[in-house]
Amino acid sequence: MIRVGVTGAAGRMGRTVIETAGDREDVTVVFAVDATDEETVAGTPVHEPDDIGALLATHEPDAIVDFSVPKATVAFAEACAAAGVPLVTGTTGFEDDQLDALEGASEDVAVLKAANFARGIQALLSTVHAAAEALPGYDVELTETHHNGKQDAPSGTANTLLDALAEERDFEETYGREGMQPREAGEVGVHVRRAGDVRGEHELMFAGNDEVVTLTHRAEDRGVFAAGAIDAAVWIAGRDPGFYTFGDVIEG
Amino acid sequence: MIRVGVTGAAGRMGRTVIETAGDREDVTVVFAVDATDEETVAGTPVHEPDDIGALLATHEPDAIVDFSVPKATVAFAEACAAAGVPLVTGTTGFEDDQLDALEGASEDVAVLKAANFARGIQALLSTVHAAAEALPGYDVELTETHHNGKQDAPSGTANTLLDALAEERDFEETYGREGMQPREAGEVGVHVRRAGDVRGEHELMFAGNDEVVTLTHRAEDRGVFAAGAIDAAVWIAGRDPGFYTFGDVIEG
Amino acid sequence: MIRVGVTGAAGRMGRTVIETAGDREDVTVVFAVDATDEETVAGTPVHEPDDIGALLATHEPDAIVDFSVPKATVAFAEACAAAGVPLVTGTTGFEDDQLDALEGASEDVAVLKAANFARGIQALLSTVHAAAEALPGYDVELTETHHNGKQDAPSGTANTLLDALAEERDFEETYGREGMQPREAGEVGVHVRRAGDVRGEHELMFAGNDEVVTLTHRAEDRGVFAAGAIDAAVWIAGRDPGFYTFGDVIEG
Amino acid sequence: MIRVGVTGAAGRMGRTVIETAGDREDVTVVFAVDATDEETVAGTPVHEPDDIGALLATHEPDAIVDFSVPKATVAFAEACAAAGVPLVTGTTGFEDDQLDALEGASEDVAVLKAANFARGIQALLSTVHAAAEALPGYDVELTETHHNGKQDAPSGTANTLLDALAEERDFEETYGREGMQPREAGEVGVHVRRAGDVRGEHELMFAGNDEVVTLTHRAEDRGVFAAGAIDAAVWIAGRDPGFYTFGDVIEG
Repeated sequence: MIRVGVTGAAGRMGRTVIETAGDREDVTVVFAVDATDEETVAGTPVHEPDDIGALLATHEPDAIVDFSVPKATVAFAEACAAAGVPLVTGTTGFEDDQLDALEGASEDVAVLKAANFARGIQALLSTVHAAAEALPGYDVELTETHHNGKQDAPSGTANTLLDALAEERDFEETYGREGMQPREAGEVGVHVRRAGDVRGEHELMFAGNDEVVTLTHRAEDRGVFAAGAIDAAVWIAGRDPGFYTFGDVIEG
Repeated sequence: MIRVGVTGAAGRMGRTVIETAGDREDVTVVFAVDATDEETVAGTPVHEPDDIGALLATHEPDAIVDFSVPKATVAFAEACAAAGVPLVTGTTGFEDDQLDALEGASEDVAVLKAANFARGIQALLSTVHAAAEALPGYDVELTETHHNGKQDAPSGTANTLLDALAEERDFEETYGREGMQPREAGEVGVHVRRAGDVRGEHELMFAGNDEVVTLTHRAEDRGVFAAGAIDAAVWIAGRDPGFYTFGDVIEG
Repeated sequence: MIRVGVTGAAGRMGRTVIETAGDREDVTVVFAVDATDEETVAGTPVHEPDDIGALLATHEPDAIVDFSVPKATVAFAEACAAAGVPLVTGTTGFEDDQLDALEGASEDVAVLKAANFARGIQALLSTVHAAAEALPGYDVELTETHHNGKQDAPSGTANTLLDALAEERDFEETYGREGMQPREAGEVGVHVRRAGDVRGEHELMFAGNDEVVTLTHRAEDRGVFAAGAIDAAVWIAGRDPGFYTFGDVIEG
Repeated sequence: MIRVGVTGAAGRMGRTVIETAGDREDVTVVFAVDATDEETVAGTPVHEPDDIGALLATHEPDAIVDFSVPKATVAFAEACAAAGVPLVTGTTGFEDDQLDALEGASEDVAVLKAANFARGIQALLSTVHAAAEALPGYDVELTETHHNGKQDAPSGTANTLLDALAEERDFEETYGREGMQPREAGEVGVHVRRAGDVRGEHELMFAGNDEVVTLTHRAEDRGVFAAGAIDAAVWIAGRDPGFYTFGDVIEG
């Protein structure tokens, strides 16, 4: 039984992690942390972010699962490094210096950062490589859709997809065509849709030569991400220091 | 047999109008106008835009079909008004003063301006009204896709759809979400995709309450627009001065 | 506070109704019924279907919410009629004689039968009428997708959409084109996709004249249906005998 | 300059091949064959199918491009084998004995058979392999859409996609779910939509674990297939006897 602490517990993902963990037999949530006013999340008492050091010392969890905001994640990572507890984070939107801080922490403990914990996204990345190779010179546009409360644009997963495409070709990202603005050669339009309760949808379109190839991933439920994040926590427990990805978990 | 002149003849749409007219028995193209260096388009000799007055006087067409650029359209409209020849224009991207000039011309001759000559777009407009009424408070996002050479963003048809939505609710358009930018209440994201040879696709998404309703129109071929523009020319021949829409043609 | 009994409690929808009711302040679940071996569903004890009469007498609920199978629903409806308790049912796949039995029960108590409790489906029905009217002669195809455990094909909602289309034009349904089988005039292809955990997607495509209009509804979560079914229970409590639809609830 | 004969010339694809060849400088159409009553297709005189032997002898083409029906294709292949003229065929829907006859002809001349001459379809095949490998156990459904005059169901391209999937896993195809028919483990639903003038759309959906990955190809114009078929004719001219695929052309 793996013992995890959940940070960013009162957000949509943190809450789902706690609920999903409650249905599994291989993990148990030993504490929850969030800056919220709520006293409990999914039946679990919530502690202040400042208490993280004391919580790590008291509960000695096998791993932390974090879906919070970049600044908070950095603080949690530093506390984990000091306490020797591995960290799985699905937070997105980091600045460069914040990423440096995470990598610094990974010298002392195992840190896994992923924009997306869905197996299907790993599959999508493979198809992006296959399509980009087979369709040289075709125009590419990326469209992603999430619920109306999502803060960062585009999503961390969209950035992961763009990184995969960048391994196959050079391009510049374009946001928000408006007015007289034809497509420039070598640009990739990035379209960020925010609406309702959409769980998460990513689409890459390759168009040219009178044909269009479209590669799409859709999450039916945040549970898919929570389950993947918990899988990552089980995988990272007891692992050596280092900076890991969700691809490492999939490959076993 | 209706006799039409085609302006903007060397563009994608002008060319398709001439080809489509060649397959029909109710119209014949009597002249073509464009600033291009090409001498003929689809087998028809091309004249300079400056010759429009002389061409109208010599050929006495029943109507002009125009797919050019706003500035040129205004000049053609004024020449039509002087010569008493009705004008059908599918040009998009007009400034307010250019629209005023078109309306001025419509006091002397029949002028029909449409962003889109497809019957399916008229159908889509009906469904937009139906959905907006049935789904109060749902978030709306508009996404349109066209070939990589299209100049204006968003398309004229997208603006027509937004106008239809504006009859049902108040909103602000948003282009290009990037960085920390959550959705504001009462905004409609407008997403302009440009790729390959896409003929034209428009999608309105209504999302809320854990469900999504999507309304989409896709043109399989520019021929659908050309056929509609020619139908409009047949309809407008001999008609009284006034400012008309493609909806008027559909309703007979 | 409306007191409801839930039948078919151990199925996906019944379970979601109980969970959703737990988060609301206007309803409480007073008993659950299912033929399952499970002792509780979402924390609520489960009774045998044969106990329905005694449960109605003991708990005197304001309404029953039922998502079971046709044969069971008929038995529940007859018990409700005898006990004077209104019934809301989302069960689909009824035979004609089973429908007759439901209507018979509605002479004694209020019975509301709906294939789908989503507001967006009501919106989709409006757009179907609008599109069918505006696009005479266009070919129509219906495609629906649900999770791999769904028993009936097509879904009850698909049948509701076909009924709406039938008000606008005559057609025959076709299933499973295979071999040398071109489209016959006046047929509507019905395509039933079953895969993974898809919550529910319905699409009507109108195609003709080099263009395609597509109308789609997607549920992001079974919660949307559960919430609608509970709304229906609140609405039906204390209402006169009769046979009602979810459209009646939406219209107030 | 490659000299080609076109068989099945009066069908949609044959006609487009002749038109497309007229715009290219590397090929010329030297004769057209079809059982139609039309005297010419796209300005080219049409001969009877029975004249194929005489036409091959008189015109000595470098290759034949065929989009007809299986029985006719077999007769053309035998005439090509006798005359030593390579054959490119895009006909679909062959019975096993007809395929044997084509392979027999390929012992004497080069024969290239392809269900689809689009580069994007080759790309889609790559992505199918990538996704099937990354998503073991996910349910797969195939949906394809073509114009309402298409005879065979499913399309030849759909069969090519199913063949690719069969290299990755075992399954049975299912057509037309109707009535009480839940999904069986290890089945792949195949959905054949026929409507309007749709150029050709193929979609493979992988669903499981609360997520869906969708891979789609859409042709914007039959020109994409005609161009590919002509590329194949240029490639096959002068080539050794053998049975080739469009993949061979793409790889050079």
